[in-house]
Amino acid sequence: MAVYTHVDAEEISKFLASYDEGEVLSFKGIAEGVENSNYILQTTKASYILTLYEKRVNPDDLPFFLGLMDHLVHKGRLCATPVRDREGIILKTLCGRPAALISFLSGLSINKPEPEHCYQLGVEMAQMHIAASDFNLKRKNALSVEGWEELVRQCENRADEVAHGLKDLLHDEMAFLKSNWPTNLPEAIIHADLFPDNVFFRGDKLSGLIDYYFACNDILAYDIAICLNAWCFEGDGSFNITKAARLVQGYGVERSLSSQEIIAMSVLCRGAAFRFLLSRLYDWLNQVDGALVKVKDPTEYINKLKFHQSVNNVSEYGFSL
Amino acid sequence: MAVYTHVDAEEISKFLASYDEGEVLSFKGIAEGVENSNYILQTTKASYILTLYEKRVNPDDLPFFLGLMDHLVHKGRLCATPVRDREGIILKTLCGRPAALISFLSGLSINKPEPEHCYQLGVEMAQMHIAASDFNLKRKNALSVEGWEELVRQCENRADEVAHGLKDLLHDEMAFLKSNWPTNLPEAIIHADLFPDNVFFRGDKLSGLIDYYFACNDILAYDIAICLNAWCFEGDGSFNITKAARLVQGYGVERSLSSQEIIAMSVLCRGAAFRFLLSRLYDWLNQVDGALVKVKDPTEYINKLKFHQSVNNVSEYGFSL
Repeated sequence: MAVYTHVDAEEISKFLASYDEGEVLSFKGIAEGVENSNYILQTTKASYILTLYEKRVNPDDLPFFLGLMDHLVHKGRLCATPVRDREGIILKTLCGRPAALISFLSGLSINKPEPEHCYQLGVEMAQMHIAASDFNLKRKNALSVEGWEELVRQCENRADEVAHGLKDLLHDEMAFLKSNWPTNLPEAIIHADLFPDNVFFRGDKLSGLIDYYFACNDILAYDIAICLNAWCFEGDGSFNITKAARLVQGYGVERSLSSQEIIAMSVLCRGAAFRFLLSRLYDWLNQVDGALVKVKDPTEYINKLKFHQSVNNVSEYGFSL
Repeated sequence: MAVYTHVDAEEISKFLASYDEGEVLSFKGIAEGVENSNYILQTTKASYILTLYEKRVNPDDLPFFLGLMDHLVHKGRLCATPVRDREGIILKTLCGRPAALISFLSGLSINKPEPEHCYQLGVEMAQMHIAASDFNLKRKNALSVEGWEELVRQCENRADEVAHGLKDLLHDEMAFLKSNWPTNLPEAIIHADLFPDNVFFRGDKLSGLIDYYFACNDILAYDIAICLNAWCFEGDGSFNITKAARLVQGYGVERSLSSQEIIAMSVLCRGAAFRFLLSRLYDWLNQVDGALVKVKDPTEYINKLKFHQSVNNVSEYGFSL
């Protein structure tokens, strides 16, 4: 939870004056997002999210992220809309930070997803993949194989502080993934961070995907692998094959998976678990005193990685060729 | 900024089902309030603040606080309304905490108040004092003379860590206030925490007073003294007599101050400065590692106290008998 940059009443009123979105009714910082400062803005016209992009976001990537959201909305996807000011500009500056006003997407993120939620997630993710495929900008995934190698270098010497044997695990897995990472699977734009807190439901119906700030060009099935990690493990660490099967089934309604994509799923799941293990490990080892964000436990992803290492056949995920 | 208790989608939906306030559209923790957890809840009917009362609030005081807000709204004051569930109940339980759903009050708190804001504050404060005067519950001010003595005892040994000579200052001021605290001034219910962040404006018009969680029975003019401290000092530490004069003038439109109340103002201002000095000092000396709230600097109130000690005549505040 975080508001890093404080925007006061005078500043938000002046900022809003450049838009045709009514007068300010209320403006409150929200305890959401670990990368940016987010506010709920209510005007005489509607509700919005105002985001100020903080240091962990590269400003050069913002035209990609915001342009992608704009593209997805125009394609009819369930995505928040970046709002244009009177001059048609989306990416603005506020309090010295890049900033954007985004339409408010209703819905709640679900803490304990059921198989039906996973099914709807699969359907919407595939529709998003298809809708994004003709977006005209590209962005390399900074957190794929090369990025992992860099994180391993930065964390290896202190990895065993977190778990005994973790340094060896990192080295062995890095070597495995480098040799086995698929190179022949369909690629396009993926979300790359579709955790339950980035998926909204109204009642039991999916109402939107948010937080496109890790979106990039990568293997489409890798987005599924991230979701299998984030949605299909239970609190006790067990893997729920019913949820996994429904997620993949939902995806298949909109976009058929090839046998190559299905066969590669355990390697992709290992990569996804490794990616979140590494970023959490890095944050864990580099905690800042007085930080407003609670650092997530990396050991959850050690356990998930070990599960995927043990998988010999995709049927163990609940689906098949 | 703080959300201490996490309420998930299932819990808020179930909670809202006991009200006749529509279905959940969105629910977000807000980075406001240092004592409680606050969420913005939007339903198909309206917007609300959901507050979960945390450890620093005594649950026995909640019927007073919520009843007072309800009373003020019925008297037409600019105050958020506690919402009743289908059984007419205001004070509920959620996630093991006392909780209440409160109507959403639009407006923004002003960072740099102008004299006109102070005038409107004076008018509304006096109207609130009059409206609250026939509320049927009472609450003693836990942070008046006796409470200050307790805080002095808890802080004195480490006070000089914050500022050289602070221990002596605390003792001398405590002795002065104990001997000189007025006993013959009109008392009724006061807000007791009317800082700028608890006063909302829409455009330049005052739209509401919030956060009644320090309200109590005490000297009415003490509420003015708190505001003179919180609204009338400039960033450089100087006292702005124009703002003070307008604040008192606005108050006088609705409720005439007696000469005794005006003469007592410098003692009341010393008491108010001392109260916030002590609570900030206590929080400063008892900071919790990993706390989500930024502790406020107590030295600001050392300087304010010293200013009031130097005042010989109320004309130095910008007003007169």
